[in-house]
Amino acid sequence: MKKLSDSEINEKLQDLEGWDYNNGAIETTFEFHNFKEAFSTMTRIAFECEAQNHHPDWQNVYNTLSIRLNTHDADGVTEKDFKLAKSIEEIIESE
Amino acid sequence: MKKLSDSEINEKLQDLEGWDYNNGAIETTFEFHNFKEAFSTMTRIAFECEAQNHHPDWQNVYNTLSIRLNTHDADGVTEKDFKLAKSIEEIIESE
Repeated sequence: MKKLSDSEINEKLQDLEGWDYNNGAIETTFEFHNFKEAFSTMTRIAFECEAQNHHPDWQNVYNTLSIRLNTHDADGVTEKDFKLAKSIEEIIESE
Repeated sequence: MKKLSDSEINEKLQDLEGWDYNNGAIETTFEFHNFKEAFSTMTRIAFECEAQNHHPDWQNVYNTLSIRLNTHDADGVTEKDFKLAKSIEEIIESE
């Protein structure tokens, strides 16, 4: 999986809502009503990660979920990250 | 819920395995075989958090889970954190 250039990443970010490129990863933060809603969404995302065999660096504090995606093997951001980001966006939007 | 003193915290940490007191919270890190095992354990812990109405600051990267516990309202570590830490330890040990 080929590492994307900064300009490729910035162009692809325009297809996503509210994601930024920062410190070698694409990242975003979501807010929910409470912990239960945040963790329920994490569970849906977790199944998608497992299906794509691609996993986030994510942090949850009560109703907040922060997600960072990059591809360790490529030492940067790849198409895999954008594919997973798009799936995460679809899960969030479906709720 | 009363904020515990540093010496109270350090004494209580002796009842736990592998937790440290750092930057106003008690914290630990667990490693699992893979993401699926890590997230399954997170799910068990999430139900316990909801039951205790006390929630962690936690971060997962593939097979690693880092947990920080403090009590926001008390601006420090309280009995609630040690109660949840003990429950987390029991969940981990039961696996």
